[in-house]
Amino acid sequence: MTGGEDRGSPKTPRRRGRPARTEAASGPGARERILEAARTEFAERGYDKTTMRGIARAAGVDAALVHHYFGSKDDVFAAAIEVSFEPALAVPAVLGQGPEGIGERLARVFIGVWENPATRGPMLAVLRSALTHEAAAKVLRTFVLRRLLERVAAELDVPDPRFRAELAASHMIGISILRYVVQVEPLASTDPEEIVRMVAPTLQRYLTEE
Amino acid sequence: MTGGEDRGSPKTPRRRGRPARTEAASGPGARERILEAARTEFAERGYDKTTMRGIARAAGVDAALVHHYFGSKDDVFAAAIEVSFEPALAVPAVLGQGPEGIGERLARVFIGVWENPATRGPMLAVLRSALTHEAAAKVLRTFVLRRLLERVAAELDVPDPRFRAELAASHMIGISILRYVVQVEPLASTDPEEIVRMVAPTLQRYLTEE
Repeated sequence: MTGGEDRGSPKTPRRRGRPARTEAASGPGARERILEAARTEFAERGYDKTTMRGIARAAGVDAALVHHYFGSKDDVFAAAIEVSFEPALAVPAVLGQGPEGIGERLARVFIGVWENPATRGPMLAVLRSALTHEAAAKVLRTFVLRRLLERVAAELDVPDPRFRAELAASHMIGISILRYVVQVEPLASTDPEEIVRMVAPTLQRYLTEE
Repeated sequence: MTGGEDRGSPKTPRRRGRPARTEAASGPGARERILEAARTEFAERGYDKTTMRGIARAAGVDAALVHHYFGSKDDVFAAAIEVSFEPALAVPAVLGQGPEGIGERLARVFIGVWENPATRGPMLAVLRSALTHEAAAKVLRTFVLRRLLERVAAELDVPDPRFRAELAASHMIGISILRYVVQVEPLASTDPEEIVRMVAPTLQRYLTEE
């Protein structure tokens, strides 16, 4: 891995306004290491017990560098969340393929993100933090959901598109909680395709019907 | 308030098999006071930080009495949850009125429980604990949801009634989380009747259609 790849990576474009020279000065990929450490810390300790100092320690950098990149704990959390939600950002693209079958496509992408343990863990951590700490809920609401839902709503041709997008999101979030967290049966062990089959018409109605 | 009312209260019938004389010996309503204190402690401190000793202190009783009534922290949590979910136990009765309009009735009862701050707080506390602690999730899954969902499923005439009941529950739980916890707009300030109107056909389909 080279530092140059990290800084200008087209995979994770960042426009934070932080000078690139600082990242170079503190070693290649320091920012990414901090974010990775932050995700782990928030997931394992929860929002409350995670500290800037603890994130710095886990990332092997000075605490001042974490402050330099992110300012506050809320800012690190928002950036860590953003990374966690990157898979979900596929959703607007999926919706952009047109109204036919939109419900099924959305259900399949969403279930896919949750079926993949690599993406499920971080999303669970976000959900848990948001449910237990108002600061984390605010970050989820203002940084992530707003942007994601706005992009989904922009693809819809229905009255109250944001409200419709939220109804669809609420159903998928509730399924995630009962299936992956509370693990109620039979939902927890139902074949994902059966869930898609049942849920798709609901999402289709919310996203396309008057 | 008189002790006699508390013990034999028809509002909250209990069949725990604990001898009534013990309750009398430790003061009228001690068990109810302990449960009330437990609900507050779990809600304020979360599952992890709540202790038997802390519950006893808040209830103004000896810790040994809490152990006597409930055995373990999980047992107190289950009993506290049970009380919190009493409003939700209206659901099977509502469903029992027949398939026509079942979706709308269910949506209205559920939203009603969450719109009422007195019942919303305890249910939120349960959800938060279940999302952050496996022990609490297990209690929710095995004690409460199983019984509630079984009763709902028993009223349904569809294939996989438990799965259907869980799909309906997942939607309502997801709406609760986005509306009352994360508070995304416009969902958070939408008129409850508008939510009922949109959600009712979804629940109707899950609970009555093949």
